[in-house]
Amino acid sequence: MASQEVPKTCKVIMADTIAKKLLSEVRETLAKVQGGDEKSAKRPCLAAFLANDDPAAVQYAEWSKKTCEENGFDFDLRKVDKEVLEEALMDANQDDSVDGIIVYYPIFPGNPTHDKYIQETVSLAKDVEGLCHTHLSNMYHNVRFLDPPTNLKKSILPCTPLAIVKALEHLQIYNPILAYGNRLFGKTITVINRSEVNGRPLAALLANDGATVYSVDITGVQVFTRGKGIKNPRHQVHDAPEGWALKDILPLSDVVIGGVPTENFKVPTELIRDGAVCINFSSFRNFDGPAVKEKASIYVPSIGKVTIAVLLRNLVRLIANRPRPAGTSDAKAISEAFADG
Amino acid sequence: MASQEVPKTCKVIMADTIAKKLLSEVRETLAKVQGGDEKSAKRPCLAAFLANDDPAAVQYAEWSKKTCEENGFDFDLRKVDKEVLEEALMDANQDDSVDGIIVYYPIFPGNPTHDKYIQETVSLAKDVEGLCHTHLSNMYHNVRFLDPPTNLKKSILPCTPLAIVKALEHLQIYNPILAYGNRLFGKTITVINRSEVNGRPLAALLANDGATVYSVDITGVQVFTRGKGIKNPRHQVHDAPEGWALKDILPLSDVVIGGVPTENFKVPTELIRDGAVCINFSSFRNFDGPAVKEKASIYVPSIGKVTIAVLLRNLVRLIANRPRPAGTSDAKAISEAFADG
Repeated sequence: MASQEVPKTCKVIMADTIAKKLLSEVRETLAKVQGGDEKSAKRPCLAAFLANDDPAAVQYAEWSKKTCEENGFDFDLRKVDKEVLEEALMDANQDDSVDGIIVYYPIFPGNPTHDKYIQETVSLAKDVEGLCHTHLSNMYHNVRFLDPPTNLKKSILPCTPLAIVKALEHLQIYNPILAYGNRLFGKTITVINRSEVNGRPLAALLANDGATVYSVDITGVQVFTRGKGIKNPRHQVHDAPEGWALKDILPLSDVVIGGVPTENFKVPTELIRDGAVCINFSSFRNFDGPAVKEKASIYVPSIGKVTIAVLLRNLVRLIANRPRPAGTSDAKAISEAFADG
Repeated sequence: MASQEVPKTCKVIMADTIAKKLLSEVRETLAKVQGGDEKSAKRPCLAAFLANDDPAAVQYAEWSKKTCEENGFDFDLRKVDKEVLEEALMDANQDDSVDGIIVYYPIFPGNPTHDKYIQETVSLAKDVEGLCHTHLSNMYHNVRFLDPPTNLKKSILPCTPLAIVKALEHLQIYNPILAYGNRLFGKTITVINRSEVNGRPLAALLANDGATVYSVDITGVQVFTRGKGIKNPRHQVHDAPEGWALKDILPLSDVVIGGVPTENFKVPTELIRDGAVCINFSSFRNFDGPAVKEKASIYVPSIGKVTIAVLLRNLVRLIANRPRPAGTSDAKAISEAFADG
């Protein structure tokens, strides 16, 4: 007996779709945050510091500029010599016309401690990338606010990990039936990349939201989890059983996230669970596209445009976090202007 | 560092919550279906035939009556001797004042073939339980309409299996990001019960929607699936590997559905995956409530009220399926009046 036509099973979701929705929310939220407060109702300004000649950074800066301008933000690209970057950042910290600061890393490739020093130079109140220690520490400890117990000023989350969280919300992998903060409970997620800027914060965010996360890099597999029944308030990290590798964890994973920054790496399609959700955040394609589309339920080939939308979202957060003169909009209302509360 | 309060992790969803939402849709859909058509704008009548003295059937009839009356339907309980049931059904088939017919089974407990004969006696156009062969065959073959290729008259699905589908939709286990018909792709579901009226149709429905379903009864485990990459238009059934039992399948299952009609059976909590979704449709509690709440992400302790809501939904479907006099409401509009298209 003939059935109705069977739709193509794998749904390919482009970053653009997710980014557009987020940018629309960003514009709405900005209008609410600025409402009734003339002083802040200027176009927000993001100052971007380029102190290397990495073509990927130049490209990212160009996309950011375009997205800023299309959405009512100013993007001020400042090309500076790495030797004067610290002073340039200190000036921008003091400059009232600058609302947020982004720096393109790496700046001192052989010296990650120096890059870390530069990250701490950016004012907490202008750190649109969430890389200052207070932001990072809050993220790892699952603390969402900068001002407990008032809890009106949200801590800033790093852009690429938050972009992937927003993608997983869009894909309904976060189950809105569950309590906020527990919406990944029951999900098993593999993150291939454990860098300090992307993979490790991402694994922590997903585990803090209730997932069992396998975090993979060339040194092996770690498990990030809030424990049995997610009874712990934040994630703990353990080593996976001795010898575990992709062959052991991919067949268990509802979601597979690739972030390996090399051209040759491909996630072995044959190990991916039938109907898994596959997301790539590397600038290289970590999945074999045609093969993965025959196996996955959802495939997101890139995430860059979502990252830029999140960058602007974070900038609006920073503006909402600023002390407000008496008589202007209510801080609580502003905090609640964001889509996720 | 102190985190915000961690919410109780397991969300208990009562059947009432899901039923109320469905009943509200049922009332709206009925109004649309009856709109502009005076002849059919009477209170729909469900004739219920009680030919056994099963206290569970009497209880179910009482609940059904209450729900009918609260939602604008007439419920006409007809207690008949089993020897005259066939004739009584034939009369009701002919009676224009009867819109739908339900029969409480079993009627001939030692003789399931005779019960099957009674099921076929009910007119296809009044079979609110979806037990006539054409409805059942369509369900197993994943054929959704009675009138291909026009596809305006929907086939009727059995009430309890459909109630569980509606519950899984409410719980967002059906992912609305995926194409209609594929929304369980990637989900692994265990159904404990393979009866002809409940467990087997349920396993088929879930597998037709893309899930990998382990169907369990005392004879062993079967796998219902649309194959690798859900390339098949409908499910196929295979035996699970030799010796497989709950110990092998529960740890793999995102959703565990219990329907064992005995007081002593309990799903072994220690085998359930952390964060699984647990649903009981047995009139006995198949889960150890306090223990499962420490392990599941979502627990639905019973489904009966959803089943009654689906009964009324099916009745409205039957009314919408009827041939309509020229000049009355458009059949396509009526078909589209239903929430799921």
